[in-house]
This record gives sequence, structure tokens and C-alpha cells, in this order.
Amino acid sequence: MQLHLHQTHHTIGDFNGVFKYLEDMKPIKPGLHLFPELFLSGYPLLDLCLQKGFIEQVLELHQKLETWAIKTLKGSDSLLLVGGLDYKFDDQGLPADIYNVIWALDGSGMKRLYAKKLLPNYDIFDEEKYFTPGEEPGLLEWNGKRIGLLVCEDMWHSSHHIQDPVKELWQSHPELDLVVNLSASPYHISKSSKRLARAREISHLFKAPFAYVNRVGGEDEVLFDGDSFVADGDGIAWRGKLWQSDLGSLDIDAVSAKSYLPLDAPSEVANTWESLFTPALDRSKNPIQINSHNEATLDEMRDALLFGLREYASKCGFNNFLVAVSGGIDSALVLTLARLALKPGQKLEAIYMPGFFSSSLSYDYSAQLCENLDVPMRHLPIKFTHSSLRNQFQDVFGMPLEGLSDENVQSRLRGMLLYTRSNQTNAMVINTSNKSELAVGYSTQYGDSVGALSLLGDLYKTEVFALCEHLNRRHNHPIPTGIIERAPSAELREDQTDQQSLPPYDRLDAILEGLLSYRMSVKELQESGFDADEVTKVNDLWRKSEYKRHQFCPIIKIKSKSFGFGYRVPICKL
Amino acid sequence: MQLHLHQTHHTIGDFNGVFKYLEDMKPIKPGLHLFPELFLSGYPLLDLCLQKGFIEQVLELHQKLETWAIKTLKGSDSLLLVGGLDYKFDDQGLPADIYNVIWALDGSGMKRLYAKKLLPNYDIFDEEKYFTPGEEPGLLEWNGKRIGLLVCEDMWHSSHHIQDPVKELWQSHPELDLVVNLSASPYHISKSSKRLARAREISHLFKAPFAYVNRVGGEDEVLFDGDSFVADGDGIAWRGKLWQSDLGSLDIDAVSAKSYLPLDAPSEVANTWESLFTPALDRSKNPIQINSHNEATLDEMRDALLFGLREYASKCGFNNFLVAVSGGIDSALVLTLARLALKPGQKLEAIYMPGFFSSSLSYDYSAQLCENLDVPMRHLPIKFTHSSLRNQFQDVFGMPLEGLSDENVQSRLRGMLLYTRSNQTNAMVINTSNKSELAVGYSTQYGDSVGALSLLGDLYKTEVFALCEHLNRRHNHPIPTGIIERAPSAELREDQTDQQSLPPYDRLDAILEGLLSYRMSVKELQESGFDADEVTKVNDLWRKSEYKRHQFCPIIKIKSKSFGFGYRVPICKL
Repeated sequence: MQLHLHQTHHTIGDFNGVFKYLEDMKPIKPGLHLFPELFLSGYPLLDLCLQKGFIEQVLELHQKLETWAIKTLKGSDSLLLVGGLDYKFDDQGLPADIYNVIWALDGSGMKRLYAKKLLPNYDIFDEEKYFTPGEEPGLLEWNGKRIGLLVCEDMWHSSHHIQDPVKELWQSHPELDLVVNLSASPYHISKSSKRLARAREISHLFKAPFAYVNRVGGEDEVLFDGDSFVADGDGIAWRGKLWQSDLGSLDIDAVSAKSYLPLDAPSEVANTWESLFTPALDRSKNPIQINSHNEATLDEMRDALLFGLREYASKCGFNNFLVAVSGGIDSALVLTLARLALKPGQKLEAIYMPGFFSSSLSYDYSAQLCENLDVPMRHLPIKFTHSSLRNQFQDVFGMPLEGLSDENVQSRLRGMLLYTRSNQTNAMVINTSNKSELAVGYSTQYGDSVGALSLLGDLYKTEVFALCEHLNRRHNHPIPTGIIERAPSAELREDQTDQQSLPPYDRLDAILEGLLSYRMSVKELQESGFDADEVTKVNDLWRKSEYKRHQFCPIIKIKSKSFGFGYRVPICKL
Repeated sequence: MQLHLHQTHHTIGDFNGVFKYLEDMKPIKPGLHLFPELFLSGYPLLDLCLQKGFIEQVLELHQKLETWAIKTLKGSDSLLLVGGLDYKFDDQGLPADIYNVIWALDGSGMKRLYAKKLLPNYDIFDEEKYFTPGEEPGLLEWNGKRIGLLVCEDMWHSSHHIQDPVKELWQSHPELDLVVNLSASPYHISKSSKRLARAREISHLFKAPFAYVNRVGGEDEVLFDGDSFVADGDGIAWRGKLWQSDLGSLDIDAVSAKSYLPLDAPSEVANTWESLFTPALDRSKNPIQINSHNEATLDEMRDALLFGLREYASKCGFNNFLVAVSGGIDSALVLTLARLALKPGQKLEAIYMPGFFSSSLSYDYSAQLCENLDVPMRHLPIKFTHSSLRNQFQDVFGMPLEGLSDENVQSRLRGMLLYTRSNQTNAMVINTSNKSELAVGYSTQYGDSVGALSLLGDLYKTEVFALCEHLNRRHNHPIPTGIIERAPSAELREDQTDQQSLPPYDRLDAILEGLLSYRMSVKELQESGFDADEVTKVNDLWRKSEYKRHQFCPIIKIKSKSFGFGYRVPICKL
């Protein structure tokens, strides 16, 4: 039997694009064709799947597909398994149940085969809000083959659900010819190895190849990396490309019948994100580590960020980009990444906005960086406006701008100038904040926190350093060493440095990772050996800065625990 | 039997405040004391209930309560039913299951009686993310009385859940002496009448009084209005105050034994918000109405907004407030509401920031408004800075500021000035955008969209007019008639009016209500008689402005369907 894995890349709601993809397949090769979870609609849909306008488009596409399948597939030896929505309406025509299903398309038309059983509802996932779990056994018999069906999360065990689709399937059918999984599985660093390990276990269990097809795309903060594969026991018969659509075709009979381990039962492995909802840190074996990425992981991180930026820009229709450069490391990294992401015909501009406290080194470093990257740097000083605002406030209110008000006004002036330029050229402003700053609120609201998208919001400052050094090694040293070596500073007052307000970044980042990703308490961190006052201070800064994160732009998510949609806390609390 | 309803008001995580409330009850009156759902922790907690630091505090409070109950309640004839969390930990000490329970406190200590069964998971609610549903039958026998136990959502029917707590309780115990419901039920306009109708039905069903105790508070965007009651058949034996803590004590035996209707079974009434997740609009009977509020509803709206503002400010520690006044109706309403919300010792300042296109009428109206309200108005013109920025952009980029860039720069200058002043006086900036503007993106990001909290973000423009006129009637006409009667304009270019960009607000608001609250499609709205092009245009503006709403401040929620946490849509989509 021929197996075709369609690792596709379509925007949410691209009904025409999806139909065109199928139409363009002609002639359709014989065999079993697999498409990702919710291939027909895109994912994650959130409330979109409840909106009547969206539902009308889904139903219209289904009608077209039914006609197309009968016309195109009649008499062929092809079966398409595509992910999509199945609506059950009440007597008023409103959606009563929505299923996340596998549709079968063949010469007889379109029919539902299986609905997803395990609906992830942790972190960024809200599937229980929208979907009803399926009841079908998940077995397809086709051309003499017994094929197990799973949708994404179904391949994992969940302590939050009664159903265990792998176990149930295995209890009724301990041996199969093939297990397939249609997925839309959000990316985070190092997820793929865990996924593959589980796939191999399932392959051994059923003594059959495991075919996994995942979508490609960036949906706001969430990335889908593709990385589809066919695993057979410990082997990999095919693996899809990362970050782009791909098509794998192979003869499944030639792949299968390898040596399988005699497994007694499936293990109870939870999805990596579910376990992060109640995470355990075994501190004896595994101290808090935030920056131990090897070269391959740093490459992966870079590629994920480039893909995320390109996706967001392309979906919003941006071909021009703006980055505020300060001579500091965050903006240097963002500008470098933006330069690497640039496609032919697109334009990138750096804006340097010095104030009274900007050192001349900041100019030199910024100019050098821009020259290295071949990015035009525009010079837009804020001193004159800052000065006249100082006078205006003194005149109107009889109070000088000083302290925080004099610091923040500079940052906000820059935000305003940046967006004014963005209006002139219809450019997308890329934010330059990192995860450490976001976590402790070390930024000015509507100032350096502005932007359409955050590239670094899921990277701690220590990771920003590591990625800069990595990009310098990989890409001919675009970032001046001075930028990496100088003491981080916002340059909003005389001789300011970050470390006047914050602990050194290696300690800060470790405390933050403990608080955020492992949900540790102040007490636990103190017992782990962190300085008591430092932990208390960081915890307070974190808790008091929710209001800033609430108004922040989408952050490209590359970790299992990130700020953004999966981070939900009250702004006001004691 | 004496019944005491404690309608309490505590911030999320105020463990000391909660314990002090109980301690201050001495001497504790005999009888049954009812407290709200999650009285001990606050609600909604979101991820907070997963954080170890929070869990430590919950467990510490439980230990204190156990000791306190044994010491204080031993030998008394008092039983306290308090809402709180019950954690079950796995072998690593991590929360495996979290229950939303009723704890009983009496002389024997603290024990769990019942756990909430229906976990709302629609709109703003994420309870299935955090809580495990309970299994207990929900019957308490105490002092010879049979008391039915419910927690909030349990009083409703849900098509999304297998359990039906009211029906199950009624099938095993068709007659009771009392039914109690511990609630933390978010407010929206006109919700209370639906809740009371359901309570009366349950009272008839069990032939017993129904005691409902709800919390008071504002948690970011969500309000809790109190409004506890004891319903008996069609009567109301006690009703708590709105928007403040209250205590009701009554003899339940004197209340009960009234005439009950012979009901055969509970109806299947869904919570008002659940039905809004798949809303039906019967257009033959009920055309889209957005501004048909009577005087009582307008009073309710005003009180909700004042309460929400006071709560947010008090939790964030603000005693100073800033409003940008423009001479337009939105800022006039916000300033009037802020003035009404002001407590003794608090300060409110209006900032008037005229530009080249501000008419002299705008100054006159603003000054008159501030005089009427006795609010100081500061005059901070943007013309000079605007002019020098025009020169700077021309010089640096060789491109004049014109069109959108020249309009937005004015709005952003105002946002920047407002926040600079806010830094000087530690004042809370109150946003002035309304729901119509938010829906179509008719605002400048980081400009007029800035603010810590939005008062009007859940009011359509037509409702802004209605509330202004209402406040003028109720509060000695603070808002100059000219502000209400002039054509709405952003005054960012010569002779600009809103209606150059948008349909008239009565039509716009009706279309928006159809799209947002009833999830109608463009096609359905067109078939309802709305102009085809107008509907298409409004739908496009709505869909393309998600990125602005994504970075918007919390909006005080007064409707069943609002922007904010319960509105979840992808930013990028086709």
C-alpha cells in the first residue's frame, strides 16, 4: 500500500487554498493520503468555530468536497484522510456539538471516520470549550489493511480524561498494519524528540508503522513546525522537512514487518505541556537550567523565530520592517534576526533614537551593526523634543520631569517616533523586549514595550546572549563584540545599568524559570539556595507587572511555558 | 433554624482578610452560616491556583481554620459553610486534582461536604482547566433539617455536562427543608432576574426556601455584585445589597412552608452565558436591540461602572486619576463617571491637549464640563511638538507627515503626554474608548487607546449617548448639551467626522451586536435588511482590528458578550 503524507501549510480560514491544494493533486496517486488535523479549517480556531460566517464557509467547502470527491476519485484506488470540523446543529440551526474529526474522501464522497477523543484543555489549549469528544473506535479497514486512527493528543495519556485512545485501540486490536495520527501540534524547543519516542513506543505496541502528519504554520504566537514522520519500531522510514510544506510518499509494506519489542501495555506518557500544568522539578537531579542549549538547539531556536516572524508578517501583509536599535544586545539580536528573515523585495530599517543619556558608544555600535547587516540606519534624536517637553511640563504643572517621569518620557517618545515612521512606510514594528524584562516589568508601557510582534519575549536575557554569540559564529559575526560585552543599560538616566534595579541576569533568570515554569514558591526557591531577599524581590516584581504583560503584543512561543495566551493570571491580587 | 448569609468582599488571595472576617464574627450566632463560593481564596483564580506559593498559603489558612473552628465553635450550635479549594496531591506533592468545594466548619474542625459538579468552561470561564468535578450527593442533614447543597453553576442545566445536580438531588430528595447555593457569579446587565427566576423554580421544586449567597468584588474586568437572596416560592424573604458586603440573618422556619407550585421536574435552563456561546436570535420576535435600556438599567449600568473603577483603583493602590478630555462625548462620560466614583481624599485631573485641528468649541465644552464637575482642567497643547516632529520627519526621511501618519502622531503624542503626567502624580489613566470604536478599530494604537482600565469598552456609542443623557437627568446636568449634540469627530484632520469613516452609529451598533453577540454572518445580516456593503465593510473592519484589541487594557464587563478575556479569536486569519 502506498502512503502519502501531506504536510501542508495554510492560514486559518483559507478555504479556497485548501480546496485548490486538493484540486492541484491531479492525477491523484493510488494509496492512502494523510492530511493534518483540521486541515480544512486551520487551527487553533478559538471562537471562530462558533461564528456563523465561518460555519457557512465550512459547510460550503464540505459540499464542494463531496462533489469533487465523487467526480475525481470515483474508480480510483485512493483514499484521503483529512482533518476537519463536523458540526451537529440543534433545531434552531445553532451548533450543538462540534467534533474535530477525520473525514474520509473517496469515490463515494465524504464521510466521517473518527473524532478526536482527548481534547487538550491546559495552557494555550481550550479545546473542551469548543469540541465534543468522539466515540468511534478508531479503526479503519481498507484494501485489506487494518489502520488505527488517532488525532494529535489521542496518542498521549491524560490523567484529566477518562478515555485512553491508544490503550482502548490496543485492547481491541493488539496488532495492526498501520497507525496514523493527524496532528496540529504546537512547537516548542525539544518537543520533537519526546513525540518521536512516544510514536516508536506505539509502533512497537501495535507491531506496525506509525505515520504522523503535522501541519506547518505560525498562528499568532503559536508555531507548527511540520516534522511529520513515519516511524517503524526504532527506525524512521520518512521524515518531513521543518518549517515548510512537504510531501512524503512511500510503500508501507516495504517499511513494515521490522523487529518490534514485545510490549505488554502502553505506558502512560502525558503530553509535554500537560505535565507542565503541574510541573515537578527534581532539584537533586535537575537544577534549574535556563541556558544550556547546544548548537543544534540554538539553530532550532533561530529557525523557529525566523519562521514565526515571516509567518506573522506575511499574514498581516507587511513587507517593511522597523527595529529601534539602541546599541544594546536585545535590539542587536532582533535586527539580526529580522535581517536573516528578510525575503527578496522586503525592506528593513533601523531607527536609532539617542537621548541625553545615550553614550557615543551606543551610536558607534549601532552604526557598526547596521553596516555589518547592510541595513539602513536612520538617526532620529529625541533630545530636542525631550527638552521641550521638560519645559512644557515645568510650565504647565510647575513640576519638573525627573526620576521615573523623565525616564519613561524618553522611552515613550521613542515608541511614538517608531510608530510614526511605521505609518509613513506601512512597516511592521518588531518589539525588542526579552522574557526576563517582561517577567519583572523592566520596560516602559507604550515605550520600549511597543510592537506588533515580540521575537525575544520567550528568551531569557542569558539566552539572548547565547543566541547572539551563536549567530555571530554562524553568520559571519554581524553583532559587534562590544554590544555583547558592555553592561546592559536602558540609558534613561546618567550611568544607569540594569543591575542597579535587578539581580545579575544569570541569577534572575534561574529564579524566574523556577517561578514561571516550575511554579515554585518563594520558600522553595529560598530552600534551594537562592538569596532570600533576591527571590522575594523578583517575586514581587513579577506579580506587580501583570498589567504590562496584559497589554503586550503576541510573543513567538518557543518554550513549553511562555507568557501569552497560555499564561493566565489575575492582574489584581494580594 | 437561624440562617446567616455572609455576602463578603475580599480581594483574590486575601487570606489574612478572610481569616480576620471569621475571627471578628465573635460571638458567633447560632445557626447555619453561608459564605460565597471560594470565599477562602477568591475567584477567578486562573493559573494562580496552580502556583506553589499560592497553594502554601491555602494550606496554611486551612490549618489555622481547623484550629480556630475547634477552639471557637466547640459546644456552639453554629455551622459555617464556606467555599474554598480542596487539593489532592500526587506522590511528588504536586496538585493532581483541585476541587471547588463547600467546607463545613464546626466544633469538630473543618471537613469537606460537597464539590462543585458543573464547571463552566465557556466565555470567560476556564474552570475545566483547573477543577475536577465533584461526586458527593449534595445533601447535608443538620439539626434535623435536610439541606440541599449547590455551588454556583450547579443550579443550572448544562448541555455540555453529563451531570444535572438539581435533577439528581431532586430525584433522590424531592422534598427538602432548604436549598443553599454558594456562588461567585459574574455580573452582567439583567442577569439577576434570570437567576432569581431559576431560584424560584428550584424553591417550588423542593418545596423549600432557596438561599443564595454571592460574593462582592471587581476582579480585573469581571464584577461580582452580591445581590444574595433567600427566595421562597414566589416570595423573597431577604435580599442583599448591591455592590457591597452585607449580612442577612433570618429564621428559616418562619420563612418556609409557603405555597409551592406542584412541579413535575426541573426545567432545563442553561446559564445565561452558556446560551450565549451558541446564541439564537429570533429576529421575527426580537430585532437586534442595543439601546433600549430603561432608567433602572441605566442606573444599574452606572453603578456597575463606578464599582468596577473603584475596585480596580483600590486594588492597584491608585488615589489619583487622569482623563484626557477632548470636548467629545466619550471623554465627557468617562470624566463624569470618574468624578462620581471619586472618594474623599482622591484626586481627579482632566487634561485637555488641543492640536491644530481642535475647534475652539472643543475647548469651551471641555472647560464647561470640568467646571460643572469641579475637576481641574490642565491645558497641554500638542501643536508645538506636532509641528517640530513634522519638521524632524521631513528632515530625516524627506517625507512629510501626512494622512494617517499625521493623524496618528497627534493621538500618540496625547497618549505620551498623559502617561508622563501619570508618572508625575502616580495617577491612573482611565481609557475613553467605547465598544463601537474597539469593534471597528477606530482608534490609534498607543494613542487614544492607552489606559489602565476601560470604562466604556463594553458600551456601544449609542449607549454612551443614552448614559450621558441619563447622568444629566440624574446628576444635575454636568455634561454640556453641545457635547451630546455635536457630530462625533477625532479632530485629527480638517473637518473630520466619524461618519466619514463609519456608518451612522445606530446602524453600526446594530450590525456589531449582530456580529459579536449573536455571532451572525454577513449573509444573515444582509438578509435581515441591513445594507449589504455596510455590513461587509463593518465585518472587515472588525476582523482586521484584532491586533488593536489584543493590546488593549481590561474592560469593565457589563454585558454577557464583551471584548476581553471571554472573546478569543486568532489575530491573523483569512
